[in-house]
Amino acid sequence: MAQLLDGIRVLDLTRWLAGPVSSMCLGDMGAEVIKIEAPKKGDDSRHVGPDVNGESGYFLSVNRNKKSLVINLKSRKGKEIIQELTKEADVVMENFTPGTMDKFGLDYATLKAINPKIVYASCSGFGQTGPYAKKPAYDAIMQGYGGIMSVTGTADSGPTRVGVSIADLTSGYYLTIGILAALFNREHTGQGQQLEVSLLDCQVAMLENPVMRYFASGATPGPAGNRHPSITPYGAFPTKDGQVIIAVGNDKQWQAFCKAANREQLSRDGRFATNTLRTENYDALEPIINGILQQEATARWIEILEAANVPCGPINTVQDIANDPQVKHREMIMSLSHPSAGEVMVAANPLKFSDTPISSTAPPPLLGEHSEEILTGVLGYGKMALGELEEDGVI
Amino acid sequence: MAQLLDGIRVLDLTRWLAGPVSSMCLGDMGAEVIKIEAPKKGDDSRHVGPDVNGESGYFLSVNRNKKSLVINLKSRKGKEIIQELTKEADVVMENFTPGTMDKFGLDYATLKAINPKIVYASCSGFGQTGPYAKKPAYDAIMQGYGGIMSVTGTADSGPTRVGVSIADLTSGYYLTIGILAALFNREHTGQGQQLEVSLLDCQVAMLENPVMRYFASGATPGPAGNRHPSITPYGAFPTKDGQVIIAVGNDKQWQAFCKAANREQLSRDGRFATNTLRTENYDALEPIINGILQQEATARWIEILEAANVPCGPINTVQDIANDPQVKHREMIMSLSHPSAGEVMVAANPLKFSDTPISSTAPPPLLGEHSEEILTGVLGYGKMALGELEEDGVI
Repeated sequence: MAQLLDGIRVLDLTRWLAGPVSSMCLGDMGAEVIKIEAPKKGDDSRHVGPDVNGESGYFLSVNRNKKSLVINLKSRKGKEIIQELTKEADVVMENFTPGTMDKFGLDYATLKAINPKIVYASCSGFGQTGPYAKKPAYDAIMQGYGGIMSVTGTADSGPTRVGVSIADLTSGYYLTIGILAALFNREHTGQGQQLEVSLLDCQVAMLENPVMRYFASGATPGPAGNRHPSITPYGAFPTKDGQVIIAVGNDKQWQAFCKAANREQLSRDGRFATNTLRTENYDALEPIINGILQQEATARWIEILEAANVPCGPINTVQDIANDPQVKHREMIMSLSHPSAGEVMVAANPLKFSDTPISSTAPPPLLGEHSEEILTGVLGYGKMALGELEEDGVI
Repeated sequence: MAQLLDGIRVLDLTRWLAGPVSSMCLGDMGAEVIKIEAPKKGDDSRHVGPDVNGESGYFLSVNRNKKSLVINLKSRKGKEIIQELTKEADVVMENFTPGTMDKFGLDYATLKAINPKIVYASCSGFGQTGPYAKKPAYDAIMQGYGGIMSVTGTADSGPTRVGVSIADLTSGYYLTIGILAALFNREHTGQGQQLEVSLLDCQVAMLENPVMRYFASGATPGPAGNRHPSITPYGAFPTKDGQVIIAVGNDKQWQAFCKAANREQLSRDGRFATNTLRTENYDALEPIINGILQQEATARWIEILEAANVPCGPINTVQDIANDPQVKHREMIMSLSHPSAGEVMVAANPLKFSDTPISSTAPPPLLGEHSEEILTGVLGYGKMALGELEEDGVI
């Protein structure tokens, strides 16, 4: 079946999460992604749990639709192989500490001289330049530096880390956007270019609302809790058996809420007549809402409120999601058949295209699984040359 | 200056956040984005606070580099104008409730018949199809449905909303990826196509690690708190005057931490010799780490630990970010000069390109600011026709 990125070859030197999320998305869309891995060890994430029949669950979740080519980047011959492959590639991606690719002799200037059409994409913690460029970056540290922790959490909990690696993921999305934009532009100019994103920059970009509020008011936004600063009632409230989220976006929905809750008096209470008043009088309103919602279970409230057109929903766990009819209908959890780990369930790609739907389902590669295929098929190496490379510890 | 998406024209029918974040990114990269807005009221987000000299801060933060064209989509003539513009456009974007574009007579089949090269991109809460397709979607509700709340927070706080509109933002990123991939593909096929993303799907995709852990272990992941399930010590710890984040990723860094903290005995304590042991014996280790870190202020610990090559960092507030030397060096907060709101500070685009850098800085448009320019310039309407459209309430 035709795929979106047919004919695009990506040399993927990224490790861990931010880069691999991006190259997985390119692979999902049909690019040939050649993952370059260090001999013996491979991507560090191959050694992070949980264990799935001897394979790393972490690695399995973000490396489908890629081929693995083992290359020792620190060897002269390894560098030469990457340079040879650059002639046959469209994209080079890397997320080493700034300066490392220069040390390898694989910096943009060198590779551009070999192939001016190459799109060279770098991802780093703080950026390739600036006073923090060389600081080490882990997701938790970047969530702290980037401000998202300072606006997440409740007044009691204080700053809270987002429960997924949001700094890595977001920079992976932006890296993908940048690569695709550069590839599109190349169709018209015939030239590649260099692009880079940093985890810090992407976190700041994600703060569009808090940044705007800070400059508009001069006040520093704190943890947002589970309510909205200017829409009421909006957030998570306790029920008989858990919590329900309601989002009363306007006064019509407020009237619908009161009616659904069978509280005619509340609907006529002047303190809560408009969204502005409800927000101002939240201290009086909150215990009333809590009292109402605690009388029924979450599932029942969702039935009642949905019937009344009051926006609402549950707080789903991962288990709920795995069994959710809409998630199933959308095929958002997919099975990959891995040669040693067996059937592996992973989150699918959320892009739905009409003409070139995402259909690639190659399982994450074993370390070096495609070394021979690529060196023979793309670069024309013979058996003897491969044997020498192996003996010299290059592959 | 040449820009990445020179020559690309986008008809942007999106409102609020998910769509506008995507079209802003396309506009940043040089696409001509024509924002279609309803007469008198415009994008609903024009009426959301905080107020910045009479303009909505919310709107200002996500609508730079767009033109505003007022069109009443419910009028026959309004529909015809969008259809005429479709002939001259490359992308149509919308985030109405599924089915609404059909009612307007602006569904994909209709617009494809007018221009087969059009890329038609939809964004919705739950997807265009499936049992939940017509449910109303607000970001807080989607954070609940999508599972991210269930893994964010501490054991005490329980499920916690991420402090930015993560469901909207992430679907905006994926929408941008999809549009660029479809535009790239069109260079080769000559044909556009339809693509859609949903907030729910994007939230599930973002759960790659929790989904994998759930299926690997059978246990449902709960709020992750501020520590890491398998790396120790990793997370936020109290200091004399606040908190510091440390990420001791391996045993060498553990030794470096003990040395920097001047705790030789701790470095030889067998209970904490390896990462596995430190994770197993966390209950014994946590009070020791807390006791050490509470002896100095955060800024001092960052000096000490950085000098010792122990990954660490602060929990920055938005104010800290606004004054951070690296954020300044990267120019991640930019000023827009708005005709009525004045100088407006917003988060910048994090994509850095070598040859076609992002340089567009047009301020968010006034409602209908470009109606005449577009109807005259693109469609060739005369003054009299414009007068009639205005009289009929179409523009």
